[in-house]
Amino acid sequence: MASSRLTAGSVGSVETQVLDLPRPVPLDCGRELHPVQVAYETYGTLSPARDNVILVCHALSGDAHAAGSARSPAPESTRDGFAAEDRDGEQGKSLGWWDGMIGPGKAFDTDRYFVVSTNLLGGCRGTTGPASINPATDRPYGSDFPVITVADMVRTERAFLHVLGVERLAAVAGGSLGGMQALEWAILYPDQVDAIVPIASTHALQPQGVAWNAIARESILRDAGWQRGHYYGTGRTADAGMGVARMVGHVTYLSGPALADKFGRRLQARDDATEPVPSSARLEPGEGSRGAADAIRYTITEPEFEVESYLRHQADSFVKRFDANTYLYTSRALTYFDLARQHGGGSLVRALEAVQARTLLIAFSSDWLYPPAASQEIHDALLTLGKPVEFHVIEAPYGHDCFLLEEARQTPIIRRFLGQEAP
Amino acid sequence: MASSRLTAGSVGSVETQVLDLPRPVPLDCGRELHPVQVAYETYGTLSPARDNVILVCHALSGDAHAAGSARSPAPESTRDGFAAEDRDGEQGKSLGWWDGMIGPGKAFDTDRYFVVSTNLLGGCRGTTGPASINPATDRPYGSDFPVITVADMVRTERAFLHVLGVERLAAVAGGSLGGMQALEWAILYPDQVDAIVPIASTHALQPQGVAWNAIARESILRDAGWQRGHYYGTGRTADAGMGVARMVGHVTYLSGPALADKFGRRLQARDDATEPVPSSARLEPGEGSRGAADAIRYTITEPEFEVESYLRHQADSFVKRFDANTYLYTSRALTYFDLARQHGGGSLVRALEAVQARTLLIAFSSDWLYPPAASQEIHDALLTLGKPVEFHVIEAPYGHDCFLLEEARQTPIIRRFLGQEAP
Repeated sequence: MASSRLTAGSVGSVETQVLDLPRPVPLDCGRELHPVQVAYETYGTLSPARDNVILVCHALSGDAHAAGSARSPAPESTRDGFAAEDRDGEQGKSLGWWDGMIGPGKAFDTDRYFVVSTNLLGGCRGTTGPASINPATDRPYGSDFPVITVADMVRTERAFLHVLGVERLAAVAGGSLGGMQALEWAILYPDQVDAIVPIASTHALQPQGVAWNAIARESILRDAGWQRGHYYGTGRTADAGMGVARMVGHVTYLSGPALADKFGRRLQARDDATEPVPSSARLEPGEGSRGAADAIRYTITEPEFEVESYLRHQADSFVKRFDANTYLYTSRALTYFDLARQHGGGSLVRALEAVQARTLLIAFSSDWLYPPAASQEIHDALLTLGKPVEFHVIEAPYGHDCFLLEEARQTPIIRRFLGQEAP
Repeated sequence: MASSRLTAGSVGSVETQVLDLPRPVPLDCGRELHPVQVAYETYGTLSPARDNVILVCHALSGDAHAAGSARSPAPESTRDGFAAEDRDGEQGKSLGWWDGMIGPGKAFDTDRYFVVSTNLLGGCRGTTGPASINPATDRPYGSDFPVITVADMVRTERAFLHVLGVERLAAVAGGSLGGMQALEWAILYPDQVDAIVPIASTHALQPQGVAWNAIARESILRDAGWQRGHYYGTGRTADAGMGVARMVGHVTYLSGPALADKFGRRLQARDDATEPVPSSARLEPGEGSRGAADAIRYTITEPEFEVESYLRHQADSFVKRFDANTYLYTSRALTYFDLARQHGGGSLVRALEAVQARTLLIAFSSDWLYPPAASQEIHDALLTLGKPVEFHVIEAPYGHDCFLLEEARQTPIIRRFLGQEAP
């Protein structure tokens, strides 16, 4: 879909397309979903043999706009953490969430590969999800949307690729929840995937991550505006709760040191010079805290620290582009994902027995939400099985967000891996 | 206040008292607060020379009930994290939040010391706070309560002790926000404090902690029930938001490994056997995720994981005993606390110049909210100044909650420290 190149290395201007699946999608819950529409973008050129396709899968808050510059009316950029702010801020463009990784000469090289990116099942950026019309009622599904799993997302992606005429993937790649989809692909469709690249991902979210996701969902569920999931058309939404959920997400996507580097304990610049200034004369000798008062804002609702304003800003911009029910369903799917339980009767090795794809695992030293140990476990299990696998831990300070930020160090690893022949 | 000993080492049955301060309390914001009532408990016997007093200061969600068993109508126990659940669960009693540390033969030995514990200024457990009646309006202050600082809490404690006839403290001790109060005491009233014991505390909350506290407050502020702080008597409260705030707190009080040990990824026991069971026959060959469906609960609102139920339970019991405005004011005070900025023009060494008290710092290896590095900085600054200081890092897995749980290892350190003569 690339038309003209904006800059060297860019896939240029792009537009998200939609496609209707011809058949119902069967779900783990036993229900079938129909109709299902899938939003997608593609970059590069499909080879005549249809053997150069890389599927890129997005994370919790992502969408199909993975690369290039969106034409207006553009889907908004949906990167997590610093990435969205920093890159959009610099360029004033709605660049795809993995623009640094997809393009000519980039990690996923569009001179060689036909890269396909879809919005996941249950999404709110063009693919059928809770905000879509339920044919049984002619109203939005809301919380009547079926509970979905990562496997359901993958089934939907496969059905979509079938319509495109693609039956085999050179690779499936993604970070975080995107990496879970890549792993699920290699297990569900082992003979249709040549390679997978799960980045900053896991075979099962660690318990603290389960807790953070539970808190984010609680924040939405407890918002009176959520209305048990049927808020569409009521003029009320769960924006307040979803904003808090987003703030929790942001802090977990960053490392403590990255947060300290970016904000420290810096206070907001003050724009309310007329506020009451404390009179230290009122304090008895020895009672004053000598200057403490100078810096304190004397209202309970205003943000004091820069990091507070940053989080509020992130929350406010997120709720404008995202649907609370999609957040609930997607957070639940990624929390539930557990390869050993799903496919191995509790054993990760057994779960991965079917895998035929070559596997490249990348993790980041400062990622405490998806710590390198989880990728190490996948690596060790594949090694036990004698499967071809590589694992790289990149030393980088930005936490989970590294998968969106550390393009320079991921690129040579991925390019080398994709250039290899399968053993 | 001890009457009969329940068990060896216990201060026995106790009752929280209240005392009215005779004079207004001057605040950093320039306002004065009057009337001010202070809730307190005492354990042990005041010596004739009034020189054996230890003041114990509580953390964010605590109260004056630090030791012993509360008589009915008992203030509820207010320990953070596992402690409240585990100890109350085992004993079915409302034990004080630091019962393991205060009593005959314990770290703070009531055979030797007269231990005093107060509910902090702005609290909701007997001391004047936002839920108290504003004499200017004859209605609860709500968000018209003045913004308070840790120094304001300490000034209130000093005024309270003055009424008791206590002008000098053998020690001030506390964990977390309680440790901040101990530090502030040593700076504001250097000639009135012989020793301080800040545990799992800091001279300034690290930026990630600032962010977590900001999120907890946002969750309350965004709850429509908060009503800009004037919810008293309206029949509506910010319980939903405060519940989420409490959940965030809980996860930050624990270490990731502690959470993993306690809950792992265990699912809730199922009590809804009648729910629809997915028909895997509906899935095409190769489409099923082979057993994934067995474990999935097919509603979006029910907790799936044990940790989710635990967090919900903690939130629900917290909102029954705590006031949302107190949470806001206290969280803000502890976030704002910054010794270097308040007292040292940015220099921690300068801030601590006035300290005369001997200092014992204790931190815990797994505490990522109040990491040992902060105590190390206090230690180093005091050492630079040639002040008497000891610093111990206890290797323990429970995160910030260690200060409530690791009694056995704190006790000998504290007893030895208090038994020493000042050099």
